[in-house]
Amino acid sequence: MQCEETRLNRKSLLLALKRYSTAVIDMEQTILLPSLLRDVPSEDDVDCEAAENSKDMYEYYHMLKVIRNTVESGLVPYDDGNTKTHTALYKSLEPLPEADPEAFFYFHLRGLFSVMGTLTKKSQDLTDKYLDIVGIGN
Amino acid sequence: MQCEETRLNRKSLLLALKRYSTAVIDMEQTILLPSLLRDVPSEDDVDCEAAENSKDMYEYYHMLKVIRNTVESGLVPYDDGNTKTHTALYKSLEPLPEADPEAFFYFHLRGLFSVMGTLTKKSQDLTDKYLDIVGIGN
Repeated sequence: MQCEETRLNRKSLLLALKRYSTAVIDMEQTILLPSLLRDVPSEDDVDCEAAENSKDMYEYYHMLKVIRNTVESGLVPYDDGNTKTHTALYKSLEPLPEADPEAFFYFHLRGLFSVMGTLTKKSQDLTDKYLDIVGIGN
Repeated sequence: MQCEETRLNRKSLLLALKRYSTAVIDMEQTILLPSLLRDVPSEDDVDCEAAENSKDMYEYYHMLKVIRNTVESGLVPYDDGNTKTHTALYKSLEPLPEADPEAFFYFHLRGLFSVMGTLTKKSQDLTDKYLDIVGIGN
């Protein structure tokens, strides 16, 4: 019975949001000196072509905290549309019909669930990286 | 103070999900004979080029109920990828960088919030249409 619950919970959006929040709390409690992450490149970006636009670990730390505030408040921030990726994302949907809200619902639900997993992993990696830097990593 | 709360709540995802759920409950309690909606075209689709693929009101009624179950359970259904729009949506995102989870987070959060508004409106319109059909509309 418990196994069945666990299997179902794996695909629960609310649980994914909660897991993210817990990972960020853990990150905040572990990283006592966030400034040690300044200028440390994010591992994901090392081989990335767009490395010059990428964030360092310190910037990721703050980004993850801001997203956690949004997740916990549940408030959808106003759309300032000032980033390149952001504009590209919306432009990519323009040619698609707006008449199928069902498809958009599942698309955004799955998308949000998936990105919460990515962000949770990022938060855990950042915590591990910090422990490495201060010399108490595994 | 209450005005401020109302303003904030307007952009709350959890409230948007709750509003949708309430609209569908209202729809279910009002529509005692859903079969009366069979073959009634959805108003949105009347002028639509792709009208041959569109749902009638009866199909919308069931679609809105299924989405409500997903909303209430919070479970993300497995991706069967069997609809045209669905494939088009995912294909549209392919050329975009995966390296910016922040942009994807806000994109899907805003998208889900927005589509919940569309679906809530659809549920209310369907309820009104039913009342018109049975002759007790405004």
